[in-house]
Amino acid sequence: MPKTAILLIDCPDRKGLVVAIVDFLVRQYDVNILNSDQHQDAELGLFFMRVEFATDDPTCTLKHFHSAFGPLAAKLHMNWRIEFADAPRNVALFVSQYLHCLADLLQRHQAGEFRCNLSLIVSNHENARPLAEFYGIPFHHLPVTRETRPQVETAQLDLLAEHRIDLIVLARYMQILSPAFVDAYPQRIINVHHSFLPAFTGAKPYHAAFARGVKLIGSTSHYVTEVLDEGPIIEQDVARVTQNDQLPSLIQKGRDLERLVLSRAVQWHLEHRILSYANKTVIFA
Amino acid sequence: MPKTAILLIDCPDRKGLVVAIVDFLVRQYDVNILNSDQHQDAELGLFFMRVEFATDDPTCTLKHFHSAFGPLAAKLHMNWRIEFADAPRNVALFVSQYLHCLADLLQRHQAGEFRCNLSLIVSNHENARPLAEFYGIPFHHLPVTRETRPQVETAQLDLLAEHRIDLIVLARYMQILSPAFVDAYPQRIINVHHSFLPAFTGAKPYHAAFARGVKLIGSTSHYVTEVLDEGPIIEQDVARVTQNDQLPSLIQKGRDLERLVLSRAVQWHLEHRILSYANKTVIFA
Amino acid sequence: MPKTAILLIDCPDRKGLVVAIVDFLVRQYDVNILNSDQHQDAELGLFFMRVEFATDDPTCTLKHFHSAFGPLAAKLHMNWRIEFADAPRNVALFVSQYLHCLADLLQRHQAGEFRCNLSLIVSNHENARPLAEFYGIPFHHLPVTRETRPQVETAQLDLLAEHRIDLIVLARYMQILSPAFVDAYPQRIINVHHSFLPAFTGAKPYHAAFARGVKLIGSTSHYVTEVLDEGPIIEQDVARVTQNDQLPSLIQKGRDLERLVLSRAVQWHLEHRILSYANKTVIFA
Amino acid sequence: MPKTAILLIDCPDRKGLVVAIVDFLVRQYDVNILNSDQHQDAELGLFFMRVEFATDDPTCTLKHFHSAFGPLAAKLHMNWRIEFADAPRNVALFVSQYLHCLADLLQRHQAGEFRCNLSLIVSNHENARPLAEFYGIPFHHLPVTRETRPQVETAQLDLLAEHRIDLIVLARYMQILSPAFVDAYPQRIINVHHSFLPAFTGAKPYHAAFARGVKLIGSTSHYVTEVLDEGPIIEQDVARVTQNDQLPSLIQKGRDLERLVLSRAVQWHLEHRILSYANKTVIFA
Repeated sequence: MPKTAILLIDCPDRKGLVVAIVDFLVRQYDVNILNSDQHQDAELGLFFMRVEFATDDPTCTLKHFHSAFGPLAAKLHMNWRIEFADAPRNVALFVSQYLHCLADLLQRHQAGEFRCNLSLIVSNHENARPLAEFYGIPFHHLPVTRETRPQVETAQLDLLAEHRIDLIVLARYMQILSPAFVDAYPQRIINVHHSFLPAFTGAKPYHAAFARGVKLIGSTSHYVTEVLDEGPIIEQDVARVTQNDQLPSLIQKGRDLERLVLSRAVQWHLEHRILSYANKTVIFA
Repeated sequence: MPKTAILLIDCPDRKGLVVAIVDFLVRQYDVNILNSDQHQDAELGLFFMRVEFATDDPTCTLKHFHSAFGPLAAKLHMNWRIEFADAPRNVALFVSQYLHCLADLLQRHQAGEFRCNLSLIVSNHENARPLAEFYGIPFHHLPVTRETRPQVETAQLDLLAEHRIDLIVLARYMQILSPAFVDAYPQRIINVHHSFLPAFTGAKPYHAAFARGVKLIGSTSHYVTEVLDEGPIIEQDVARVTQNDQLPSLIQKGRDLERLVLSRAVQWHLEHRILSYANKTVIFA
Repeated sequence: MPKTAILLIDCPDRKGLVVAIVDFLVRQYDVNILNSDQHQDAELGLFFMRVEFATDDPTCTLKHFHSAFGPLAAKLHMNWRIEFADAPRNVALFVSQYLHCLADLLQRHQAGEFRCNLSLIVSNHENARPLAEFYGIPFHHLPVTRETRPQVETAQLDLLAEHRIDLIVLARYMQILSPAFVDAYPQRIINVHHSFLPAFTGAKPYHAAFARGVKLIGSTSHYVTEVLDEGPIIEQDVARVTQNDQLPSLIQKGRDLERLVLSRAVQWHLEHRILSYANKTVIFA
Repeated sequence: MPKTAILLIDCPDRKGLVVAIVDFLVRQYDVNILNSDQHQDAELGLFFMRVEFATDDPTCTLKHFHSAFGPLAAKLHMNWRIEFADAPRNVALFVSQYLHCLADLLQRHQAGEFRCNLSLIVSNHENARPLAEFYGIPFHHLPVTRETRPQVETAQLDLLAEHRIDLIVLARYMQILSPAFVDAYPQRIINVHHSFLPAFTGAKPYHAAFARGVKLIGSTSHYVTEVLDEGPIIEQDVARVTQNDQLPSLIQKGRDLERLVLSRAVQWHLEHRILSYANKTVIFA
């Protein structure tokens, strides 16, 4: 039974990169390349590559790959990572009072759209509990106030460590995370912001969009960084606002967008299709 | 031969508005209502209506309508205007060096999409001249420098007055208009901004969008007001950016959007489908 | 407390319709018109109108309206109906093995997007039962074989009658309904077909779309008529197929479309925004 | 000065294809791979690849490449072709009476969007002549009747041969081409059909779409094959039909789609981004 892995690389663009990488994989592990995709950022002079390969070679382990590929990677100034498809991925969902994104993610997981374990649901409210129980996901109610935030974050981080969480999905979690929390999970916290970023950052973006009179509303999924709503954008989508839309119907249309852009981001992350650089992303999809 | 007119109204919402308006039209001019459309802005408590009607009554003139409808309009605190469909509309196109919007508008006009005269083309460069001549539109080359702007604007305003221009379309005209110029044509100057406003105001929006890593680029047509890129939005559209897009292909995709949103705005304006209020628009379409 | 009602009309187009209708409502019931919208089908010479109004007049009942409005309606050859907003609407959901549409409808109902009672869920399989129980909707398992279809349909019709069902939603119910069943609920059965109709009627539309190499896949919600996949279309939407899409990802994208077009159809039906004529629909939205 | 070329391959999928191809290019011509992209059709078990490379090797000519790559290609059962980026491409535009696609293509060519010579315009009507003359493209008026079609096609084929035409674009050319004509330019005639194929094949698709009551209209660009409207689809796009659209506005919206899908197809063809197989296309874009 061959194992499948994904190699993700970004580095300064130069001649011979594709050949060097493909040659390494074939000579070292006699791989079968299932998929390979590359892009450039001509403005920044960068090269991006994603290779999905299968190999029967039992020596192809995380540790072996690091020592075998390391020297080449260093020579070519690569940022890179290798992900084995059969490695378990543990996901935590954070939610507050709006449940539409959570319900959507749970249903998609049940339908087999995500390759991961949903390990736990964390909320500062109680209303997601029945849904969590229905889908059989452990639910942790951790209320937050301005005063208790530090202790609550410590409790959250303990939970995440205990369950060896790889990815945190903020499914309309309405609390701000501290820089220390964010730093603990770089490129591993996905948020959905209910506007077409960079328009309408901050609170109440639907109200702001309605007041400005835009003709399309949007939604954005992105990695969380220390600066609110400024992290690398993963996916965006929009819906048309008509003359008949008032704030409530605009918000309802927005919920559909939130579900779509968040679920796509989660799927792409879990399939190792996202490469993040210069506060942007390349999506290999 | 009946004449056709469009009545556009906005006023505080209250009971009985539709009936009062319809009754007036029927009793006064025995109209046939061809189309009537109404909307509310529930946040602001406003009512909007567009009625398109036909009448055989020869007394239904601009002057007569004003004196007949004026008292009712005053009583109900209406902003309103009446537009007769057979009134000639004179349009001026302003352009700089990029000709794709201009070429598109000229071709659409020739194909009969716009009910108007294209009276003149004004440019601070010479390169639109052949296109203007091909379509038989008088071309005025008025170069602008920082120093000459006031005199040039005076010359432009003289031209516009001489041709009794009703609408000015900035088809990628890259000069800033002075407040005095803008004030002379309120809600009668349409611009296209090559971003999804309010994101990426100002210069080089495609570069800014590429640098921010957005997944959709947009374009916006709007009425020009004194504050740059802040006028009432008329139309917006977006296109998907993929991992293969570099700046040049992103700009090319953007040109398609610019053509679409600008041409829709011009058509809607000429068909009296746009009502502007509170720095927003209602589109009756 | 005023009552709100919606009047839907289609009739041959002629002068004076809007005035006649508005005048009747005001004179008879002193209504406040909350919304009125009208359209034409110029090809067929038809006029369509939807008026939403409020009245304090206690005589404005279904029965009274019929006798009061009937003569005018007859004179103008109208098809029409009146719907009171506070009238209870009972909805039955039919589903087979794919649960994504059902889960979506249940979540939207819980979030308040639909003005109706979800009275029961009918399925020829058992797998929707847990979801039904979670949302507290009575679940009826009625397996169907070619031989038992007539008896099962009788049992279904009994259930529907017993619960005074107003609308049947086929949320990926993979059984064909007999003409007699369809006739019992004209314009009151909504189906989702997983293609952009009229392309790819019949079974396995995603497979057919993939084989034909279309660049967009679609989904269609429609009223069910005796001829399979030929009923009046209510809503359609599409998603782009890329070079990376194989059949499974195409089907996954399709599921998102199915949810969207079906939920919009259900909402518009419940808000009395759909007028059906000549095997087409007018959507007042 | 290095030369740039594009290699396009389809063959049965098997292990080692990427490596074999990349290795050949590097060993034979010491290439720099600018871009490489591959896809599979899992249903049919096929592999597709597009490699864009640069080389300084003067021996890398069309003839040399054929003899050097031929044996490997034969061994792996490849269909393949090599295209040198600096090879001149001659394009003929065919048009009838609607000029919107023609005007759009001419303007895009002038703006530098297409890498080709526009060698000639052929029409069965005179109305495109001024546009042709404005853009300086030789215009050939060849009227067609049912009786004269064979002679006219002979004249057309002579013209195409004389100008060494590589690609024929039917920019709303409303005449049917004979099988012999089509056979002379396999995968080298691009047509735009004004519907979302496979819906509404044949004549008057907008009328058919309006009669069926679809909620989106579409447009399709495709390679022409002997069976009308059945060739491999290159690109499709759609626009929303609203309750306000009558046939004329629907046709106007359709014209925008026709321009977009036809211009994208022409650009992709000229950039060797289209691979055609099994009556479908892979777009490397």
